[in-house]
Amino acid sequence: MKAFMDKDFLLSTEMAKHLYHEIAEDLPIIDYHCHLNPQEIYEDRQFENITQVWLGGDHYKWRLMRSAGVEEKFITGDASDREKFQKWAETIGLAVGNPLYHWSHLELRNYFGYDGILNGDTAEEVWQLCNEKLKVLSARKLIEGSNVKALCTTDDPADSLEWHKKIAEDESFGVKVLPSYRPDKAMGIEKADYLDYLKRLGEIGSFSQLVEVLKRRLAFFVSFGCRVSDHGMEAVPYAPATADEVEAIFQKRRAGVLPTASEEKQFKTALLLELGREYHRLGVVMQLHFGVTRDNSRRVFRALGPDAGVDSIGDAPSIKELAAFLGALDDTGELPKTILYSLNPNDNAALVTVMGAFQTGEAVSKLQHGSAWWFNDHKAGMIEQLTTLAADGYLAGFVGMLTDSRSFLSYARHEYFRRILCELIGSWVENGEYPNDESALRTIVEGISIKNAERYFGL
Amino acid sequence: MKAFMDKDFLLSTEMAKHLYHEIAEDLPIIDYHCHLNPQEIYEDRQFENITQVWLGGDHYKWRLMRSAGVEEKFITGDASDREKFQKWAETIGLAVGNPLYHWSHLELRNYFGYDGILNGDTAEEVWQLCNEKLKVLSARKLIEGSNVKALCTTDDPADSLEWHKKIAEDESFGVKVLPSYRPDKAMGIEKADYLDYLKRLGEIGSFSQLVEVLKRRLAFFVSFGCRVSDHGMEAVPYAPATADEVEAIFQKRRAGVLPTASEEKQFKTALLLELGREYHRLGVVMQLHFGVTRDNSRRVFRALGPDAGVDSIGDAPSIKELAAFLGALDDTGELPKTILYSLNPNDNAALVTVMGAFQTGEAVSKLQHGSAWWFNDHKAGMIEQLTTLAADGYLAGFVGMLTDSRSFLSYARHEYFRRILCELIGSWVENGEYPNDESALRTIVEGISIKNAERYFGL
Amino acid sequence: MKAFMDKDFLLSTEMAKHLYHEIAEDLPIIDYHCHLNPQEIYEDRQFENITQVWLGGDHYKWRLMRSAGVEEKFITGDASDREKFQKWAETIGLAVGNPLYHWSHLELRNYFGYDGILNGDTAEEVWQLCNEKLKVLSARKLIEGSNVKALCTTDDPADSLEWHKKIAEDESFGVKVLPSYRPDKAMGIEKADYLDYLKRLGEIGSFSQLVEVLKRRLAFFVSFGCRVSDHGMEAVPYAPATADEVEAIFQKRRAGVLPTASEEKQFKTALLLELGREYHRLGVVMQLHFGVTRDNSRRVFRALGPDAGVDSIGDAPSIKELAAFLGALDDTGELPKTILYSLNPNDNAALVTVMGAFQTGEAVSKLQHGSAWWFNDHKAGMIEQLTTLAADGYLAGFVGMLTDSRSFLSYARHEYFRRILCELIGSWVENGEYPNDESALRTIVEGISIKNAERYFGL
Repeated sequence: MKAFMDKDFLLSTEMAKHLYHEIAEDLPIIDYHCHLNPQEIYEDRQFENITQVWLGGDHYKWRLMRSAGVEEKFITGDASDREKFQKWAETIGLAVGNPLYHWSHLELRNYFGYDGILNGDTAEEVWQLCNEKLKVLSARKLIEGSNVKALCTTDDPADSLEWHKKIAEDESFGVKVLPSYRPDKAMGIEKADYLDYLKRLGEIGSFSQLVEVLKRRLAFFVSFGCRVSDHGMEAVPYAPATADEVEAIFQKRRAGVLPTASEEKQFKTALLLELGREYHRLGVVMQLHFGVTRDNSRRVFRALGPDAGVDSIGDAPSIKELAAFLGALDDTGELPKTILYSLNPNDNAALVTVMGAFQTGEAVSKLQHGSAWWFNDHKAGMIEQLTTLAADGYLAGFVGMLTDSRSFLSYARHEYFRRILCELIGSWVENGEYPNDESALRTIVEGISIKNAERYFGL
Repeated sequence: MKAFMDKDFLLSTEMAKHLYHEIAEDLPIIDYHCHLNPQEIYEDRQFENITQVWLGGDHYKWRLMRSAGVEEKFITGDASDREKFQKWAETIGLAVGNPLYHWSHLELRNYFGYDGILNGDTAEEVWQLCNEKLKVLSARKLIEGSNVKALCTTDDPADSLEWHKKIAEDESFGVKVLPSYRPDKAMGIEKADYLDYLKRLGEIGSFSQLVEVLKRRLAFFVSFGCRVSDHGMEAVPYAPATADEVEAIFQKRRAGVLPTASEEKQFKTALLLELGREYHRLGVVMQLHFGVTRDNSRRVFRALGPDAGVDSIGDAPSIKELAAFLGALDDTGELPKTILYSLNPNDNAALVTVMGAFQTGEAVSKLQHGSAWWFNDHKAGMIEQLTTLAADGYLAGFVGMLTDSRSFLSYARHEYFRRILCELIGSWVENGEYPNDESALRTIVEGISIKNAERYFGL
Repeated sequence: MKAFMDKDFLLSTEMAKHLYHEIAEDLPIIDYHCHLNPQEIYEDRQFENITQVWLGGDHYKWRLMRSAGVEEKFITGDASDREKFQKWAETIGLAVGNPLYHWSHLELRNYFGYDGILNGDTAEEVWQLCNEKLKVLSARKLIEGSNVKALCTTDDPADSLEWHKKIAEDESFGVKVLPSYRPDKAMGIEKADYLDYLKRLGEIGSFSQLVEVLKRRLAFFVSFGCRVSDHGMEAVPYAPATADEVEAIFQKRRAGVLPTASEEKQFKTALLLELGREYHRLGVVMQLHFGVTRDNSRRVFRALGPDAGVDSIGDAPSIKELAAFLGALDDTGELPKTILYSLNPNDNAALVTVMGAFQTGEAVSKLQHGSAWWFNDHKAGMIEQLTTLAADGYLAGFVGMLTDSRSFLSYARHEYFRRILCELIGSWVENGEYPNDESALRTIVEGISIKNAERYFGL
């Protein structure tokens, strides 16, 4: 029996251990997509206790606690932080097979020096230990201590990027903190508060003005080192319309009338095509996140708002339309570098084959299959993503892991990913399915750990 | 090489053997969903020969024989029981990788003391042996000998439950035999014989009377210890309609006019919502079985009727509508404890995430992902169901296995499930992915084997 | 660590090695579906260099090179063959986890006697070696050297089959080269050049004449030993229409008007039903290939035409309609032996259950789940196909592998398949999940390797 989560965690062969410990382990991290708050980085936020860090806004943990039958009072309610931690400890203690079990224990090992097991019995000990350590930890210390070289936050086009500016000017902090361009609100024509949002962008009287302003903001982001954009949606739209039709939809919306479903799709298609072309022109990577159904429980949404742990995987077929959207940009040679993330793991094989249809010599793996995302961000999900990409695409060109996280402790997920990657590649070598060629293996493992991302994002 | 199906069948590590033999193996069974005939239990049915037991109504076996090219004469036709058994033995003998291979041999070991292999050559020996043993076996002996504590049959709301009453009154039989409430016929407004069925429920002149009667019948079932309901459908419907609209659809049907597809959906939505609320009020668990396409071969249906082995997995996207249905009940705090079963294994991940969106402190894992069902009820299907539930949900809260069977020999499937469960959890411990914590492991394995079901169903 | 791709490649247990080396390895090959050019077989084509063989028309390799960021010039462009080979060698050298890695190295071992590794550094050595060997290799030598007993090419109904005739008459070549009937162009009523195609079939003034001519051509194919037909489509259609409606659609098309989408589907349904009945009458196997989205990149299609490596897996639900189509033929007892191939691996379980619904005593596994196809033709895809077929169908009746290839070197894929098959079945025996019964194992492995195909296709 292997020891529980020791230095060879998830590494079962000599080759896997070699690839991880000799190649991957000490490489720096480029976290090209996260949701960290740049203000908290600049101000070097500290935390009073481990409940604030772990349960403050982590809807992954909230879900798990609800699934374990914990009352909402101890999750997002008015119970004390210590009480909440107790319930969390009891929950995670039995969460066999769940990635949160591993993430939490990796974080306890890496940031708090705790090698034991977290459960209801050890909760008090862990509470004391973590809170003591938190006195000397902070946002910047956690980032630097994780060997992060660069990270990309997620920002609205209307954002002033003041905190990014301050971080860049602060010579005491060596980590690149770059903005990412996420214009979901500018796309959200069906939302009740759309016109209010538009005002944040300035005086906008027409669709073409909207496009103009968004391009200007993108250029502004690029001047701050922005290398990547991001779009979140239920499905990637493709409903082509004429310029006049799109303008009419926009004017109707300005007059206060919500669009029909098909008008919404036409508008979003047109805007996403415009942005896609601009991403291509400026060399900005386009990330597309889709396959999500949000806010399933209106009851919870009313109480807690969005991102409260009541989202789910959508199952509407979406790949054909996605392919048509990519094809429209590809047709004129204006498809930017693109990373595709579907929340539905059933899409993996189809997605990788769609990517393959649009690859060109413009970049190594110009189209990327994003690392196993959200509900798939676990051992089986990662193995499935890596195996499918290897079989139907080109694993050696993969840009690898990102945290997609709001937490300063989540860099442990890069370690988790690298261990799984090295175990998988190591198993192929051990089985005689790939040669024991140190040079090639180093190229592949270093590439996926960091070098591909450096090249792909131009960092 | 491991011996064929010996006491460590499917258990490859010391930890797996420990979890199975020391914890799971001897725990009693709660079979919370089956299709046993209560009359046969009361009357303690006996069988003349093994063909009657195995091939009398088991469409799993019929399918396999047809796939092996066996003529229908030897499956459901007029060949002799001995001839049919010969064809079955020849078929199963080569059915490598099929769960029926394991189920059949487990049944031969557990009920008939036969440790050999069944194939064309051994058919005569097995035939003689089984028939001899069948002389002293019976429905009750098979149930009691399987260490069953309680079982839930599947019953129509119009059922008098007379056999359940007699069983309950019979002090010589210690196993709880509880009815389950399955109102599929009351939902089946599109069926030609719907009005005839309604008459079985009494005088019903309106939709609200129908609801009233169904609630009364549910209360009657509950008075017999009913803890669980069940609904089978192609997809869980969600098409909200006003009370007037639903009443009009019902009146139209009473007048002999079949509903349109959208009317059918509106009716079913309305009735299922009414029943869901009542299940919540009375603490009855709601089971939803969907993702099925039935009676694909009309040729076979004409000859043999339903449940003849010609059903299949449906592939229409159904999760979004299911989530909307659950959301409608959740919205008013009236979502009952619910177990979701899709026949399409592609739905697993999406289903588990939908469940997570509606979990509350009302129960440990109030929403459950049903154990791998029907065409998924095999080793790979179970591992996939357990792994997905563990990764995206909370495996420790799982209510575990059920037989869903018409056969008194099917309790061997609980053994099959427990072996696979212990092998999976054992592998995680052996790999250092979960600690070797006897107390936690016992809680988890005992829970999934029986204790979670006891608590969840209130038995 | 196992040696890289030695004689026990992919075989990890003694039983797997036994099954492969003692049973499967030396059995001849029946390649019942390929795209070899019969003229090239008759004329015994030779190749100047390895780039011509490997990169001449292999869109699998083109995709991989594009994914690795290789410029089109070095793929399908005007770079020299030696330059292209260099880029290919550099690409494949890092393609860990990709089936092309294994196929290429198996081909190097089997046809060129090269036991080393192909990458950028060894490209020159391999180039020289292969080109030297190619001087004494040819189409026929490659086929005969691969122990091929029979192969089925893919041919248009309008084809004269002159090359098949010449091959059959050439007593110096012992391999059966049979035509397959692939009437995709006759089905393609929505294509701009449909009327031109019809002229190739003769004077056709009505739908019933079209059916008549196609039946006549099928009889002609059968007279050349044709045992199998093939249809490629995005989805199997089922939209029944009256004879008059279908005739009207056909006449409209004759008048130069393209059909609507629903007319197209009605026409294709009608024609496919007619052909299906005729296949049944003549004992010709029907292959249905679907789940494909073709020519995603119009940019590449404009430059290179079809089959240029820009196709992908489609994700539209298609199984219900497929089942209805099969059901229509089954209903009158006219469903032919049928092999189903979906490009979407998500369809596997549903497909196997649909097959099960239509199996009859007419043949062992009358309906077949085709071997993992195209983007699924890799280790994980094959294991998934075999495991699903075993669990929900009857693996022992499977007709096994085919190359589906345009290359004379692709027979290595049969070796790849047989190794994976033996490893899988071997693992079941080693784990005690199937008995170590030499006779049964031989029946199963020989059956899937060749004997089932001989019986199924009547060869």
